[in-house]
Amino acid sequence: MFQTFDSVSDKSFGAKHLPLLRARLKEIGLDGFLVPHEDEYLNEYLPDNAERLAWLTGFSGSAGSAIVLTDKAAAFSDGRYAVQLPQQVDEDLFELKMTHETKPEDWLRENAPAGTRIGYDPLLFSESALKPFQTAAVKKGFTLVPVRPNPIDEVWKDRPDAPAALIHPHPIEFAGEDHAAKRARIGRDVAEAQADVALLTSPSSLAWLFNIRGGDVHAAPLPLGRALIFADGRAELFVHPDKVSAELPSHLGDEVALHAEDEIDTRLEALAKEGKRVLVDTGLTPVHYIDLVEKAGGSVVRDVDPVALPRAIKNAAEKEGARQAHIRDGAAVVRFLRWLSIEAPKGTVSEIDAAKKLEGFRIETGKLKDISFDTITGSGPHGAMAHYRVTTETDRKLQPGELFLVDSGGQYEDGTTDITRVAAIGKPSEEMRERYTLVLKGHIALGMARFPKGTSGHALDAIARLPMWKAGFDYDHGTGHGVGSFLSVHEGPMRISKAPNAVALEPGMILSNEPGYYKAGHYGIRIENLVLVTEATPIEGGERPMMGFENLTMCPLERELIVTDMLTADERRWVDQYHAEVLAKLKPLLGADDAAWLEGRCAPLD
Amino acid sequence: MFQTFDSVSDKSFGAKHLPLLRARLKEIGLDGFLVPHEDEYLNEYLPDNAERLAWLTGFSGSAGSAIVLTDKAAAFSDGRYAVQLPQQVDEDLFELKMTHETKPEDWLRENAPAGTRIGYDPLLFSESALKPFQTAAVKKGFTLVPVRPNPIDEVWKDRPDAPAALIHPHPIEFAGEDHAAKRARIGRDVAEAQADVALLTSPSSLAWLFNIRGGDVHAAPLPLGRALIFADGRAELFVHPDKVSAELPSHLGDEVALHAEDEIDTRLEALAKEGKRVLVDTGLTPVHYIDLVEKAGGSVVRDVDPVALPRAIKNAAEKEGARQAHIRDGAAVVRFLRWLSIEAPKGTVSEIDAAKKLEGFRIETGKLKDISFDTITGSGPHGAMAHYRVTTETDRKLQPGELFLVDSGGQYEDGTTDITRVAAIGKPSEEMRERYTLVLKGHIALGMARFPKGTSGHALDAIARLPMWKAGFDYDHGTGHGVGSFLSVHEGPMRISKAPNAVALEPGMILSNEPGYYKAGHYGIRIENLVLVTEATPIEGGERPMMGFENLTMCPLERELIVTDMLTADERRWVDQYHAEVLAKLKPLLGADDAAWLEGRCAPLD
Repeated sequence: MFQTFDSVSDKSFGAKHLPLLRARLKEIGLDGFLVPHEDEYLNEYLPDNAERLAWLTGFSGSAGSAIVLTDKAAAFSDGRYAVQLPQQVDEDLFELKMTHETKPEDWLRENAPAGTRIGYDPLLFSESALKPFQTAAVKKGFTLVPVRPNPIDEVWKDRPDAPAALIHPHPIEFAGEDHAAKRARIGRDVAEAQADVALLTSPSSLAWLFNIRGGDVHAAPLPLGRALIFADGRAELFVHPDKVSAELPSHLGDEVALHAEDEIDTRLEALAKEGKRVLVDTGLTPVHYIDLVEKAGGSVVRDVDPVALPRAIKNAAEKEGARQAHIRDGAAVVRFLRWLSIEAPKGTVSEIDAAKKLEGFRIETGKLKDISFDTITGSGPHGAMAHYRVTTETDRKLQPGELFLVDSGGQYEDGTTDITRVAAIGKPSEEMRERYTLVLKGHIALGMARFPKGTSGHALDAIARLPMWKAGFDYDHGTGHGVGSFLSVHEGPMRISKAPNAVALEPGMILSNEPGYYKAGHYGIRIENLVLVTEATPIEGGERPMMGFENLTMCPLERELIVTDMLTADERRWVDQYHAEVLAKLKPLLGADDAAWLEGRCAPLD
Repeated sequence: MFQTFDSVSDKSFGAKHLPLLRARLKEIGLDGFLVPHEDEYLNEYLPDNAERLAWLTGFSGSAGSAIVLTDKAAAFSDGRYAVQLPQQVDEDLFELKMTHETKPEDWLRENAPAGTRIGYDPLLFSESALKPFQTAAVKKGFTLVPVRPNPIDEVWKDRPDAPAALIHPHPIEFAGEDHAAKRARIGRDVAEAQADVALLTSPSSLAWLFNIRGGDVHAAPLPLGRALIFADGRAELFVHPDKVSAELPSHLGDEVALHAEDEIDTRLEALAKEGKRVLVDTGLTPVHYIDLVEKAGGSVVRDVDPVALPRAIKNAAEKEGARQAHIRDGAAVVRFLRWLSIEAPKGTVSEIDAAKKLEGFRIETGKLKDISFDTITGSGPHGAMAHYRVTTETDRKLQPGELFLVDSGGQYEDGTTDITRVAAIGKPSEEMRERYTLVLKGHIALGMARFPKGTSGHALDAIARLPMWKAGFDYDHGTGHGVGSFLSVHEGPMRISKAPNAVALEPGMILSNEPGYYKAGHYGIRIENLVLVTEATPIEGGERPMMGFENLTMCPLERELIVTDMLTADERRWVDQYHAEVLAKLKPLLGADDAAWLEGRCAPLD
């Protein structure tokens, strides 16, 4: 069992821990402190020893922050956590703010008196993330002070140890390109950017570049560490010595030097003193390293992580791996959905039961390495919390008449999956069916889209939303995120989102397509497939080749929730063709009963 | 007659003028020079004395640039000018480049040897526009050198004088808000941006802020000049003394000081020496002023022109003015289209005849102050040049079997119009009809869109393109530009375009909706209405209020070119409702024959 259902936080954390932090801030002469969710790797998923925001506030979501001043404090998150934030955080201690209404820097500007000293940990902020606070500081007249060690770490009793999972090679049959070839081309990009060396701090970049996988965080095989990649393709990998497996040194070979992680500062300083130009990603790398290089007299080339784009463009082995992983995973999800259709209407299945059962079916594939995130099993009103994680305290039984939203994924060596389906337990209401169909129209509109080279995901986002906008609805999360290849289930640099993002979609990228609808207190709907960006191909009768999306996720939609009359002929055809493909690909993997059930689910729409 | 049909440039210009510039560059020790299209006001439409790019290269388009080195040179423009650029520029002297394929800074980086000195005129570049060249300079190792006076001006014999049209007040019945109120709110924005004073260099901003109109450039009533607006609402206007009309001083009143335009440098220097913080728009203001303020010890607040957004959000008087201007203008266009339908099939009407006739109908409204740009009358293959301007040399007769694209607009005191219609002369081909219908589907998709607060035009762009993308077509220009109120027909800060732009659409903004299709050597199609962004209103059965677009342009579509079977029921309904509205609004302005003709054009689709 990979998932646990314990509460990892407690609403009393604020009352217990906020005074400890405030006392420490006073000792070191600070009037405030910024507490982001991010850790030293600016990663979404954190090891337990880096859950500083949860320790301080009780909030356990994957995106948020807090600001502590001497007499007041605030906790921030986004629309996905609108319900969860007040459930987990003590409102007597923290003002609760949604970032689309109040940006943290604006709250700070309003509340930090001029002349005060506000601390931040320079290992937990990229230069880009720090910038709005710096602007606020100039405008209001307070001072931002970098502080190491992090004062939270100094007062956090029983803080867990840092993780130290062994690092293993990722087989070439899955990686598709050896690390010497990868290093050579990334080195050329470093040279092209007029840098001598690039600092890599994103664990996904380390994993991809060296074809290695680790186990330092839950749900993604990431090795925490740092790396340097030089213009000539040589590299240095900085990881804790306990994590070096027996196979690692020979896998890395002569051109990759291994160092202890805590040697990175000294090494960077030495390079800077030699006058080396160091490429640093201003959005992904802690600002600490920029300060360090500049103080030592080196020059910083501000650019993007040179691994980010190559990593996102999957090669032939990764693409085929993703297809196979999704067929395998889809068969497990189909088995689960059939089980659910039999058991749930009895009213005896709980959200935890469902999550365990689904994980069990995935484990039975014999290939599951981990789940790719904690399964979201949102029944009824819990479904309206877009990122609900069930615990023993919140668990409830699925009831007839409810919708049940399941967002889950698996980590397989050949690929990472992420799928959301909504099941109607018993008979759904007409309202539920209409809203589901609106979400489906958005999902299909994006899935059927064709677009030319150079189009960003941001430019496509409205296509998925338009059917809902026209009906007066919207959803407060992105439409699609990049997905790694046996790596993070959320992976940049591209995304399909309202937030501006200029990264063009490229053939070989894997993204999610997941519009949704949430009725607070009642139910949630989200339809999520992973899709692969296809090569630009000619269109009959057209002039310009166009890219598009290939569905990777193979699993039927919820036909009881589709109002067929609301679909256009093209949309119906899309559903029927998709279902035919699902049936053809999954049937060989299923037993007779499951196969028969799937046939019914994949029949043409009435 | 406002439009002229003379060739304003000549392909021999390069051979005549390039050697003069090169000789001057040599004298002043430069190895190259950057020649943008923009003038000292970073304006799209230039007075004759600022047509430096046309003088040097022969290229007369509204967007482009050139780079001159000692032994080679290049001229650049975008997709709208793909046909025109090689027609006007001597390829023996200039490499011709499309900016979506080769960016000028990349060409420079490739071709300027390390160690060379490349000049630029700091009054013709904003800080943002200069930045890519600075990056290229650092990477390649050449030096960028600001040069004043502009070496082109030094060798340009018979350069026209600067324009000096009188500046008049813009009546409050059209402006809708007096300039004291405007200055007070812009002043508050300057203070909010932590600046003491903002420098305004965009003629549209001067015109809007002070409720004045001038006549220094063709097709837009712009007063060229500079202005300062202080945090307390006081202001200073810098224009050539010859342009001060008798009414101007009393219109401006005590809180707006008048200075000669050439005093701006001295005044800015003085403010900078007093330690004033000067707000400067990094995209709209010449970098010259940033350098000047910083050298004099002042601090520059880099922000956006504080007038740009308020100017774009039209008030009640401007919105109602726009509606009236469009009804009046639409009636003139309908009279023209009926005349065209009678005369053009005879094969006797030339592109110049058509442009003159259309201008004549507009003049007959009795309200036309100017055309809003040179009318594009593109018959047959000329229609495929998106920004074709007919001259006596290129003029041709409209022929049966051709499409005829007319893109035109008028300047009225109550509003600026811009409309494109395509007429089929005689019987169109099925291909023409299919392509027209695809363009129409895109136009309707955007026109029918609803969207929430915070949505940018960039995010909506793909909605207009998707029908074409799915069929394998696209167009190489933006989908929509902002439009001024008796000001520039192209006005920021918002736009609907593939190019990233984060400015959210706001109720009261006026934009164009103009997808197109161009078949080089054959014909062009573009359907353009101006639309007004509406307030967010509730949608029946929905939860969130949504904004949308109100059609301002009133003129029938080309029904012979619509393949009704390609339209959905919703799309047909949109066309029929639009036509019903057009008929109701225009009929009262038309004589019996024109009204009868319009009735036929506005009947429900078959």
